[in-house]
Amino acid sequence: MSSPGNFADNQVYLGQFLLERLTQLGVKRLFGVPGDFNLTFLDLVEEHKGIQWVGNCNELNASYAADGYARVKQSQMNALHEGEQSDSKPGHAKDAQGTDKSQGGVRGLGALLTTFGVGELSAVNGIAGAYSERVPVLHIVGVPSTKLQKSKALLHHTLGDGAFNVFEQASKGITCARAFLQRAEDAAAEIDRVIFEALRTARPAYVTLPTDLVFTPVDKKRLETPIIPDRVGFHDKNVLPTGKKVEEEEKERLEFVVDEIARLWSKAKEPVVLIDACAIRYGVGHLVRDLIKATGVRFYTTPMGRSAIDEDPNDGFGGVYVGGVTDPHVKELVEKTDLAFMVGSLKSDFNTGEFSYPFDQKNVIELHSDHTLVQYATYPDVSFHQLLPALTKVLERKDQLSKPSPTQGLKVHIPDGPKDKMVTQAAFWPMMGQFLREDDIVVAETGTSSFGMIGTPLPKGATFVSQVLWGSIGWAGGSTLGALLAAEESPKPRRVVVFTGEGSLQLTAQEVSTMVRLNLKPILVVLNNDGYVIERKIHGEEAGYNDIATWKWGQLLDTFNGYNPPKKTKSLLASTRGELEQILADPEFAKAEQIQLLEVVMGRQDAPEALIKQGKLSSELNAA
Amino acid sequence: MSSPGNFADNQVYLGQFLLERLTQLGVKRLFGVPGDFNLTFLDLVEEHKGIQWVGNCNELNASYAADGYARVKQSQMNALHEGEQSDSKPGHAKDAQGTDKSQGGVRGLGALLTTFGVGELSAVNGIAGAYSERVPVLHIVGVPSTKLQKSKALLHHTLGDGAFNVFEQASKGITCARAFLQRAEDAAAEIDRVIFEALRTARPAYVTLPTDLVFTPVDKKRLETPIIPDRVGFHDKNVLPTGKKVEEEEKERLEFVVDEIARLWSKAKEPVVLIDACAIRYGVGHLVRDLIKATGVRFYTTPMGRSAIDEDPNDGFGGVYVGGVTDPHVKELVEKTDLAFMVGSLKSDFNTGEFSYPFDQKNVIELHSDHTLVQYATYPDVSFHQLLPALTKVLERKDQLSKPSPTQGLKVHIPDGPKDKMVTQAAFWPMMGQFLREDDIVVAETGTSSFGMIGTPLPKGATFVSQVLWGSIGWAGGSTLGALLAAEESPKPRRVVVFTGEGSLQLTAQEVSTMVRLNLKPILVVLNNDGYVIERKIHGEEAGYNDIATWKWGQLLDTFNGYNPPKKTKSLLASTRGELEQILADPEFAKAEQIQLLEVVMGRQDAPEALIKQGKLSSELNAA
Repeated sequence: MSSPGNFADNQVYLGQFLLERLTQLGVKRLFGVPGDFNLTFLDLVEEHKGIQWVGNCNELNASYAADGYARVKQSQMNALHEGEQSDSKPGHAKDAQGTDKSQGGVRGLGALLTTFGVGELSAVNGIAGAYSERVPVLHIVGVPSTKLQKSKALLHHTLGDGAFNVFEQASKGITCARAFLQRAEDAAAEIDRVIFEALRTARPAYVTLPTDLVFTPVDKKRLETPIIPDRVGFHDKNVLPTGKKVEEEEKERLEFVVDEIARLWSKAKEPVVLIDACAIRYGVGHLVRDLIKATGVRFYTTPMGRSAIDEDPNDGFGGVYVGGVTDPHVKELVEKTDLAFMVGSLKSDFNTGEFSYPFDQKNVIELHSDHTLVQYATYPDVSFHQLLPALTKVLERKDQLSKPSPTQGLKVHIPDGPKDKMVTQAAFWPMMGQFLREDDIVVAETGTSSFGMIGTPLPKGATFVSQVLWGSIGWAGGSTLGALLAAEESPKPRRVVVFTGEGSLQLTAQEVSTMVRLNLKPILVVLNNDGYVIERKIHGEEAGYNDIATWKWGQLLDTFNGYNPPKKTKSLLASTRGELEQILADPEFAKAEQIQLLEVVMGRQDAPEALIKQGKLSSELNAA
Repeated sequence: MSSPGNFADNQVYLGQFLLERLTQLGVKRLFGVPGDFNLTFLDLVEEHKGIQWVGNCNELNASYAADGYARVKQSQMNALHEGEQSDSKPGHAKDAQGTDKSQGGVRGLGALLTTFGVGELSAVNGIAGAYSERVPVLHIVGVPSTKLQKSKALLHHTLGDGAFNVFEQASKGITCARAFLQRAEDAAAEIDRVIFEALRTARPAYVTLPTDLVFTPVDKKRLETPIIPDRVGFHDKNVLPTGKKVEEEEKERLEFVVDEIARLWSKAKEPVVLIDACAIRYGVGHLVRDLIKATGVRFYTTPMGRSAIDEDPNDGFGGVYVGGVTDPHVKELVEKTDLAFMVGSLKSDFNTGEFSYPFDQKNVIELHSDHTLVQYATYPDVSFHQLLPALTKVLERKDQLSKPSPTQGLKVHIPDGPKDKMVTQAAFWPMMGQFLREDDIVVAETGTSSFGMIGTPLPKGATFVSQVLWGSIGWAGGSTLGALLAAEESPKPRRVVVFTGEGSLQLTAQEVSTMVRLNLKPILVVLNNDGYVIERKIHGEEAGYNDIATWKWGQLLDTFNGYNPPKKTKSLLASTRGELEQILADPEFAKAEQIQLLEVVMGRQDAPEALIKQGKLSSELNAA
């Protein structure tokens, strides 16, 4: 235990060490809420040049913000690879020094800081969402000093039973690694361990920081060794009992799998590539793009795989595939394939139209971060990081794009409708598709918005984020804040356009005030349809329990704007289609030079087609 | 598995069974948020005559609301005993049929309903608070059907790994009992088991309700056996190896402890009674009051023990005792005692002035629900339920009240100050003490408000609720909703007066909109002092991380009032002491006939005396 300012030149405080590690990994914002057990660490945060403290209104919102930040940072890191040409040899790293970060090392990382018990527990849902959706987030928890912990004192924020480790249980199933720092000797190593695991698995990790260890001196030299080793993966110099080097064995295994896939591919008449969530999380979008270019095949994305690569029909984008919930034209094209080549699949209910993939397993190949599936065979430890570049070199060219296709990706078809009536969901989403522009970040709340976006085209360079698997309503309110701050770190100016429902935004509405405070400029599109529409579509269409409080959304920004002088904000209302058209056509609105909240009044029972289909499927499954 | 309407007359659906159980225990409101795995159960809730569904804005708020509801219901149940004279014989139930509910059976119970994963995890902090502070709350979680669980389907709201039991871990350390319903055969018994444990331990319990079991028929007859057995406790007809009946052994043990205490009491010159949290939670306030009346001693309360019995100086109330944080006059009186008789102690840091009780253990007696401490001796299984009435009969009368005392409970001393300046904390709390009236329910947020209330007198019949041990900021925003609904169930009209800070209310502000929606009429006093003042007092007095967003509090109610016709609401602002005096003197304001939000502008560094003392103590302890 040590007090500030009492150590040698070759040392840093443990708290500083942690912040340096975050900085090395590109983390420039720390989200969270102050609490008495994290205040001294916050002093170090305030001093730190590279990291900005973003105080949130509550911890759940902070966890969502860290998640949104990590997602957008990841997409911006992926975009850096867009210009690269992959030339790794099969089974071999591009560079012995490991400079090919695409090998799986680099991740968009998010971080949040909470306080013991009361703070950390409020963040649990957001952390679980990051676990479920594979978003690496470091959850730092300021906890009582190791001395107080040992004394089992009946502190506030405890359960009154002297137990100081019970909250760890809450984070156990929803983080990939946990460190409960107790000793100066291994604290820095423990921090490195959990951050490494978060990056390796693309999942959240948890670390407790006792008040007395914040100012423990640790060896500065440790910071010179990057936390990301040259390659994250299964590369190994060891020798097997057979005398063969592990590295050689891996190479042979990879070649075997490449041959297997190449054989199937060459027989296939109409292969399709289906890009899914983990292609984004593990940053292999550019590798898939190379493969698609090299083979000339058409590709599709799942809802969770959107914006892994640009959705350009000229480059082969065929549409969004969601099993039985898919647009009929796209559905027919995908499902008649004789080889479904899936990259980073995450086959959850909402991502697959309630498990309605009809593919014959004999016609399926799945590439993952840590294994590969070919027909009925599983190949452990064969990762798409190595496999994709290898396949790009050998797969037979198919030239599908030279033939005309009944679908050319997603197109904007705006159905006609009266200008003086509420806009319909059927018209709204194509209108928004038209409104979106290059490099936009689109945040879509679970429910109406994420289902509405299924049919909405994304422009070049756009990033699409949505919580399709975990599906926690309210997520968009917090994650938008993170997305906005990540967008600020992009070299290009990026708008953040958010689609959410008035019911969802009520869960986390206060975080909009943080956006006002920090002068951020989202376009917040609030679909006001008077209740929980996704629930109505699943069950209880007219039930009172799907009703919610009625807010004046037009006043929200002003209520959050108690500053002198006031911040620039703008509230807009589109009660009719005509009003919406006018707003969308206004160049001032499109410029997004201030925070804007656009309330769009929509029909109580109106919903995107995909949501209606999904609602029926969910309802049937629950009743089964 | 069964579908609705398909069972015999002597059966009810499992979902109905659960609702009947809640109704039997006085639960009239179910808090929560709808989600696709709880919708069919919600159909049964909507049908049910005795239970009102209260949809919350989010699950954390719902858990706080259930906690506040349970606390106020408990106090109202305690009040029902106020007229009773206890006449149980030592070690023996008053009534073999168990009609003496004070034996520990009756508790104010709260209940909330969330959905699998996303919903339940957001409630974890509120449930942990109820565990810590001993508030019985039943957390019902709608989960996927048992069939889907067995299939390990990759459903939304899962972690994507087919594990359906991981969220149970989050509730493990923070609930007294958990039931994961899987089979029709034992589902009703499992529900009874966890509710019984919640009541017995005064702590939250957890039950999962799969969609397919909601409509499982169960035997109606089971509802005829009350879930509360005649007596909850250690009563037993069995025979010991010595041939003695357990009941007789218990009686002898109780008499032994009574003798021990009576001997010490008779030697003591200045005994004091100190009433603490568990006297409220276990409903023994009336038993303590009887003992105090019979012996004529002066009593004090801890912050968590307040309003266990009326704080009437004529009946012996001496003040609020918080160790080193106590008002000096009260402190001197309490600490010079030669016998500290403590009832239901909960010696947490904030409840004891950072563990600063100076009592010599030879002079201490502690009565608890499940054990008794006399000097250095522990007597397991000797409960205050039996001990208090027994002691009331035998303890020597002390007649302390006939002698004058330097303190006579808490008195309103309002220091002078300029009318055109901000009101000081030193003046504000006595002013509020003057404003409070009989039967008020006072909800005090952790921090400035709970510390401010330490010196503020409570009128006859008042209920004071605060989260002193768990101390989660934002709790007041949610629990006020529960308190308001519990107040509606009281035979007497009761005002709900809430003290919170603008920083705290930001965490859960949306729940105020539920109060507007339900036409509830709290007096919400928002102390606006521009940041987290309790944190400033502990650490970082001028640090940026203790700053927060600046809202226009005067607009909040209106923003939440999008109804046509609008609901009645009123916003008030007291920027100066003069303005505050005017508002408090206005009979319209005091009538509380509509929801009112009173923003009181206070100094950024001003704080109640007790908070300043506590802040210093906490800071020292963290640094140690």
